[in-house]
Amino acid sequence: MNARSKTKAYAEEVALNTKIEVRKRDVERILSAIMNNSNFWKIVQLSEEPVPVVAELIKIMERDGFVAIEGDQIKFTDDGKALCKDEGIEPLHIHSCPTCSGRTVILDESLKEPYDKFLELHVERPEAIRQYDQAYVTPETTFSRIALADSRGDIRNKDVIVLGDDDMVALALAITRLPRRIVMLEIDERIVDFQRRKAKELGLSNLEVRRHDLRKPLPEDLLGQFDVFFCDPPETVAALAAFVGRGVATLRGMGGAGYFGLTSSESSFAKWRRLEQVLLDKGLVITDIIRNFNEYVNWGYAEEMLAWKLAPVKVKPTENWYYSSIFRVEVVNEIPVSNEDLTDSDIYNDAESSTV
Amino acid sequence: MNARSKTKAYAEEVALNTKIEVRKRDVERILSAIMNNSNFWKIVQLSEEPVPVVAELIKIMERDGFVAIEGDQIKFTDDGKALCKDEGIEPLHIHSCPTCSGRTVILDESLKEPYDKFLELHVERPEAIRQYDQAYVTPETTFSRIALADSRGDIRNKDVIVLGDDDMVALALAITRLPRRIVMLEIDERIVDFQRRKAKELGLSNLEVRRHDLRKPLPEDLLGQFDVFFCDPPETVAALAAFVGRGVATLRGMGGAGYFGLTSSESSFAKWRRLEQVLLDKGLVITDIIRNFNEYVNWGYAEEMLAWKLAPVKVKPTENWYYSSIFRVEVVNEIPVSNEDLTDSDIYNDAESSTV
Repeated sequence: MNARSKTKAYAEEVALNTKIEVRKRDVERILSAIMNNSNFWKIVQLSEEPVPVVAELIKIMERDGFVAIEGDQIKFTDDGKALCKDEGIEPLHIHSCPTCSGRTVILDESLKEPYDKFLELHVERPEAIRQYDQAYVTPETTFSRIALADSRGDIRNKDVIVLGDDDMVALALAITRLPRRIVMLEIDERIVDFQRRKAKELGLSNLEVRRHDLRKPLPEDLLGQFDVFFCDPPETVAALAAFVGRGVATLRGMGGAGYFGLTSSESSFAKWRRLEQVLLDKGLVITDIIRNFNEYVNWGYAEEMLAWKLAPVKVKPTENWYYSSIFRVEVVNEIPVSNEDLTDSDIYNDAESSTV
Repeated sequence: MNARSKTKAYAEEVALNTKIEVRKRDVERILSAIMNNSNFWKIVQLSEEPVPVVAELIKIMERDGFVAIEGDQIKFTDDGKALCKDEGIEPLHIHSCPTCSGRTVILDESLKEPYDKFLELHVERPEAIRQYDQAYVTPETTFSRIALADSRGDIRNKDVIVLGDDDMVALALAITRLPRRIVMLEIDERIVDFQRRKAKELGLSNLEVRRHDLRKPLPEDLLGQFDVFFCDPPETVAALAAFVGRGVATLRGMGGAGYFGLTSSESSFAKWRRLEQVLLDKGLVITDIIRNFNEYVNWGYAEEMLAWKLAPVKVKPTENWYYSSIFRVEVVNEIPVSNEDLTDSDIYNDAESSTV
């Protein structure tokens, strides 16, 4: 086997074992990431590849003597280094902007006061629990979403709905007092209670909080009533289609906008393409994709998730490692969306999901 | 007519007159932009709407007494202000990062030396001419493309092709000495000569410059030979499909990546959606869309272009106003692309193009 085909052969083996579409280029990305960092979670983050793919590749490269696991460090052996050299793999050089962390927007003077207020409240927020597949973003991420949407004209005097709000976007929006109306739907009673209580304490009359299971049809009175939606759906094609569909159903139609996140850790680019096709089929145009915009705070149930079981090294992540890209979509073709009940359909799992 | 339907009615009238898909939301974006700035070119830039749409809306709102043109300033009359208030239109608040200008990446220490060298050469570059529909980006933009592509692992030790290179991406890449091979194709002999001469003077042996008309089939020896392509295609659906298709034809297949720009000034979001469908149909996933990444230097033939004829105020732009978003795509499905001759097909014009 010549060097050129080694990464290709590994791609094929990993694809076979994980049932995920994996190509030579994906293997190369993981090798580049191992050159940059020896921590499993950092390798996942830098490679922007699904957790099961990264774990499987490391496992078989260890078997073949190209990778060694020393304590909790993942490193190339001399043979591994030679392989990288043969295949022309280079370490990653990331030129991310240190001011905005690559988000394109900053929390400038006009957002400072509401952001400080939000930070005060945030320390009291309920912790992420596994029952609802939760993992929330940093307060800076939540406010950066608002800065981005405001830069697109999607906040001031607009009617905004937040579908599932572990990230406290609705509460943050209410604190800015910029939207005309904010409605938030969430299944977790703890989050519903927290936002309701804080809204009352701060006199945020523009925020309406409702307990609702998004697998169930949306309440009729919310259909076609909003300018903008935010959501953070599970990443199977079926779940993303269903949740974005719910979002589109709440919009007034043409020109309505939506924001949601999509990771590389749970979704290969092959899956991204299928998800993008779903968006276009719903009459949406994709207007922004900003890589790794959303930074998630490490959650308490790390050791219970599949990713932990897959990890070749059982070391808890110390730094945040789970990121997602933000998508902005806008309605340019009105296509009817259904409001069906999804309670009994299994839309949450596929081969690439590992943090549930 | 109630206030709610006024912007809708204008959208319909502008759509009828321009043959471009225009919605209420597009009209709102232009009104927001007029609240921010009174210069025609800045209004186009801020609204992110096609030039013909902005020009037509201003014309009919002037007719109806909502907009007044005072000297070279475009302003709302009192009636216009009342209309905006009734419809809940707010000025734009853009929170763009001042460090990276919203590009996500910076030209850090590792790129400083080649960038300085590039700046020295750039002053001698040939000017943009109308014959080839040219408009080139700032040197900072050219290098920011390299910073972005390097952050995605698309530069070091890679084989890169640049299809049409008014922006001097190939020369800039050669100066970094990071790619393994760089090939540049360009129709304009002045640019071919300039890059060839500079490559020789600087001993940049990794850069190969060829004069080629991209409407003609690609030379056979360049098909399937590259990891990454850059191009900056004309923005009709047919031209973008053809140029991106050429790019894909040069790639080694799965995992190959491409970069190109797309404006709002020449393309409505409705057209963006059709273009995105073309990308997915070619087996590509869209991995990044960074708004207004590319800043174009005002070109010398402004008064000859259609946009000038359309402009309600004949004042030359003093600041750069023409921006485009950068798209990164990656091959996740190998779909055969044709290499046909397009010399005799009219792929350059549609209702939305105005700067040719």
